[in-house]
Amino acid sequence: MATEAHGTAPTTTLPFVDFETHPDRYRHWKLSVEGDIGYLTMQVAESGGLVPGYELKLNSYDLGVDIELHDAVQRLRFEHPEVKAVVLRSGRDRVFCAGANIRMLSQSSHGHKVNFCKFTNETRNEIEDASANSGQRYLCAITGTAAGGGYELALAADHIMLVDDKSSSVALPETPLLAVLAGTGGLTRLVDKRRVRRDLADVFSTLEEGVRGKRAVDWRLVDEIVPKSQWDEAVCNRARALAGTSDRPTDAVGVRLGPLTRQIDESTVAYRWVTLEIDRDRRLANVTITGPDSPPPADAVGAAAQGDRFWPLALARELDDAILHLRLNEPEIGQLVFRSLGNPAEVLAYDALLEQAKSDWLIREVRLFWKRVLKRLDLTSRTMIVLIEPGSCIAGTLAEIAFAGDRSAMFEGNVTGQSRLPAVLALSQLNFGAYPMGNGLSRLETRFLGEPDSVGAAAQRRGELLDAENAGRLGLVTFVYDQVDWADEIRIMLEERASFSPDALTGLEANLRFPGPETMETKIFGRLTAWQNWIFQRPNAAGEEGALRRYGTGVQPTYDRKRV
Amino acid sequence: MATEAHGTAPTTTLPFVDFETHPDRYRHWKLSVEGDIGYLTMQVAESGGLVPGYELKLNSYDLGVDIELHDAVQRLRFEHPEVKAVVLRSGRDRVFCAGANIRMLSQSSHGHKVNFCKFTNETRNEIEDASANSGQRYLCAITGTAAGGGYELALAADHIMLVDDKSSSVALPETPLLAVLAGTGGLTRLVDKRRVRRDLADVFSTLEEGVRGKRAVDWRLVDEIVPKSQWDEAVCNRARALAGTSDRPTDAVGVRLGPLTRQIDESTVAYRWVTLEIDRDRRLANVTITGPDSPPPADAVGAAAQGDRFWPLALARELDDAILHLRLNEPEIGQLVFRSLGNPAEVLAYDALLEQAKSDWLIREVRLFWKRVLKRLDLTSRTMIVLIEPGSCIAGTLAEIAFAGDRSAMFEGNVTGQSRLPAVLALSQLNFGAYPMGNGLSRLETRFLGEPDSVGAAAQRRGELLDAENAGRLGLVTFVYDQVDWADEIRIMLEERASFSPDALTGLEANLRFPGPETMETKIFGRLTAWQNWIFQRPNAAGEEGALRRYGTGVQPTYDRKRV
Repeated sequence: MATEAHGTAPTTTLPFVDFETHPDRYRHWKLSVEGDIGYLTMQVAESGGLVPGYELKLNSYDLGVDIELHDAVQRLRFEHPEVKAVVLRSGRDRVFCAGANIRMLSQSSHGHKVNFCKFTNETRNEIEDASANSGQRYLCAITGTAAGGGYELALAADHIMLVDDKSSSVALPETPLLAVLAGTGGLTRLVDKRRVRRDLADVFSTLEEGVRGKRAVDWRLVDEIVPKSQWDEAVCNRARALAGTSDRPTDAVGVRLGPLTRQIDESTVAYRWVTLEIDRDRRLANVTITGPDSPPPADAVGAAAQGDRFWPLALARELDDAILHLRLNEPEIGQLVFRSLGNPAEVLAYDALLEQAKSDWLIREVRLFWKRVLKRLDLTSRTMIVLIEPGSCIAGTLAEIAFAGDRSAMFEGNVTGQSRLPAVLALSQLNFGAYPMGNGLSRLETRFLGEPDSVGAAAQRRGELLDAENAGRLGLVTFVYDQVDWADEIRIMLEERASFSPDALTGLEANLRFPGPETMETKIFGRLTAWQNWIFQRPNAAGEEGALRRYGTGVQPTYDRKRV
Repeated sequence: MATEAHGTAPTTTLPFVDFETHPDRYRHWKLSVEGDIGYLTMQVAESGGLVPGYELKLNSYDLGVDIELHDAVQRLRFEHPEVKAVVLRSGRDRVFCAGANIRMLSQSSHGHKVNFCKFTNETRNEIEDASANSGQRYLCAITGTAAGGGYELALAADHIMLVDDKSSSVALPETPLLAVLAGTGGLTRLVDKRRVRRDLADVFSTLEEGVRGKRAVDWRLVDEIVPKSQWDEAVCNRARALAGTSDRPTDAVGVRLGPLTRQIDESTVAYRWVTLEIDRDRRLANVTITGPDSPPPADAVGAAAQGDRFWPLALARELDDAILHLRLNEPEIGQLVFRSLGNPAEVLAYDALLEQAKSDWLIREVRLFWKRVLKRLDLTSRTMIVLIEPGSCIAGTLAEIAFAGDRSAMFEGNVTGQSRLPAVLALSQLNFGAYPMGNGLSRLETRFLGEPDSVGAAAQRRGELLDAENAGRLGLVTFVYDQVDWADEIRIMLEERASFSPDALTGLEANLRFPGPETMETKIFGRLTAWQNWIFQRPNAAGEEGALRRYGTGVQPTYDRKRV
């Protein structure tokens, strides 16, 4: 193991990590709804860590706690159309949240730390997405200490309230205490979202004890402070005011998100619409996506009647779970090879419904969910290769997977002796803005930064089943091979990729996938995450005598004093 | 040593690195001028490495080679106002440049690799700055192989020509060959400057042999290919065409950049206008900047007559050298504490000249040079604290140093028994756009992202000598302390900072210093560099069995296959 070879951290082997959960099984959060206000109350079970070796004291969290939060944020959107504002609060006295559990971090492998931070970052983005696009506004009501990841959670909300009781405070003590960064978006949100003056941000980020009271407002760290005597009423009023800005329906019925259909064995994960086949020898996963088995319902009402069986929703849930499964449970699988099977015209028919009914709350949620799933794909640190073969259905929304991939290859012509239709690729209106990447552009705009006219040329061909020659000419695929070359070319490409250093590929892909403009989101995943990953490897943080290991021992960490 | 503790690279201790050089002493480059065209011809001396242990074969480079390039780019601007286009070319057959020397990288410490990349990145930005702002356009004429850093050098030029001879090619083979990234801006410039389609960029960046001929043009990797028979003429014509777009003067006389006045001993570097005092116990450097000793000349002609003694130019050169000296030769010095000494009104008088005569070529160069020096400060991975005490001259251009700092502190009132004037801070027109940061904003715009009205409020007070109370109220300084508190507060601040992990501080500062928009430049230094630094620590690249160490041995590297 890399980390062991470095003599840095004792690595606990993670058990199978399951991202599926349900409020009935939450151990750390309570989800409740009162009228149009949702409440997410954090009360972390100390003994409820994912693995042994640490206690989740003071509302500190590990990946398991965040899996519940992710689940709750998702259910609030689909199951509770009536909820227009959500209050994040603590169920404990004197502490809001102490952030990521330090013993958990110190005993985790480098890879787990990175994956943990990535997922928690994604969940904070989900909160911001709910607020910005789904009319579900978040209010963070801080009583007690919000430190490190605790304050970073607050930073994801639209509005931060802090009780003014002489002890409640916000803090980012990672650098002074632990020799790491506030890496779950904290430093970026501080200066780019809340626009804290950079020298004050520097001071704040080095104050172990944090900031409280009026100074917290003056420095733009929180939006308001409220005396304890007026707290409950003020939080309630503020939540109502936020709810008043929402465009969510008042009388819609939510869609229940039932358990996923999923069978897992040694080398396969079989969902209803997605199949993963793990090829351990070649260190790759074959991901097969199945198109719909029937035409779409006539309208949004029909989609709601199908509930979580509505194909685009069911597929998105499965694909999301599959990506997370691969990330956490299959770290040695370096390549994801996507294939699809189905009728591209039917996929386009679903896209037509998603476009025509986009003002409906549920259809909007489905589209926004696909946006998030595709972003999670963009951020997946595995090579993604999309194969478009006869019988595939890379159309519209599914074509986004091809554009998210690092490369694609398309089969030209027929296969001798096979009756399947030649491979086609088709675009729908949804390829032109419905699913922006983290950089704010569509995947086609990103692809064609250097030749913007190609976006228009592709738009002209919406709805057409483009064969390989046309798809190649329009620049929509990387390679076109015919039957003579296909098998060898694909084999060589996959073998060659598998021979490269996984770390270099991670860095290469992270730099090539996001050309064009930067946003707070790309800054968090590009700049902040990359620095955090660097620091997570440094002996000053992760070494035997580093701050993460020495924390709480009473022994000061030993630092290499060289500046790099 | 961190790297040794990791068992990664054998670290060669660098000798004193001197950034001063002169074309007469170049070993690796030839600088020649023919009319309005400059030629920079690369012919690296194999045995001319900065330290023993590697040979600079195939026009590969180390820091010493790039120091000469930096010097040449600088001299072309100041000493050759007549040069309107510069041709970068190779003096060797069959190879343009093989990039950074691999044995040098494999024997270097982590810190040296990082500093080497930072300096080479800065030098490529200097080339782009000359082209964009100084009317000195760069043409890269590639004969032979331009691989890795060789192609990254080409990417800095406005126009890339490649001879079409069936063997000359461009390549970024870092990932397949060395398990690292094309980290000197390569990956970013590929997709963000040249806007190569991201999937083609992915293919290109994994092709050891690179791309040549028509495909290199089709993929936007080069701007044109030319048959060998027409090469010299085509390069000449293209250089003339580029020169034709320049606004540089035709009849101006250049300013000779003479040797710096500099005395170095164990704990002091004394220039004419800058003094460094190294306090090794406290791991800090006191940097004192001296204001002008006489009023400015009346106009640009007077400035030209003073030549390299013109105070703003002389000071910028010294400060630039001092920053580079600290970076390379004083790695354990974690904090730079800036002070100044002089007459702020006189600094403002110089600024008035720099503003009034800004259309003059030399004054323009001086302003652009200050912009670059200040950017180098922004990118310096040391905490920068600026103290504004009685007798200081933090005004206009020098106030940019205070805004570049992570924090500043200003002394309020008089010192008992001292006759010095109270501390003041003054702004000039040059604080409002003359010195944009890498993010494209002025330092005041960056500072006041969250309160843009404060920029206007500050602009109203241009030319005033603001006392501490006013400077504090305008948000121009972080702390204001009076005589009672000053000494203790400053001491505690410096001690506390010195106790933190240098790595975490580097990451913290890199994230807080650049809020707001991102540019190609901030992406290179933020995203790409951070990923490269991460990879430079990974055993897959830098370990005993990693690709950097195994390169050229005939033994394949061993990779940890986990994806992070």
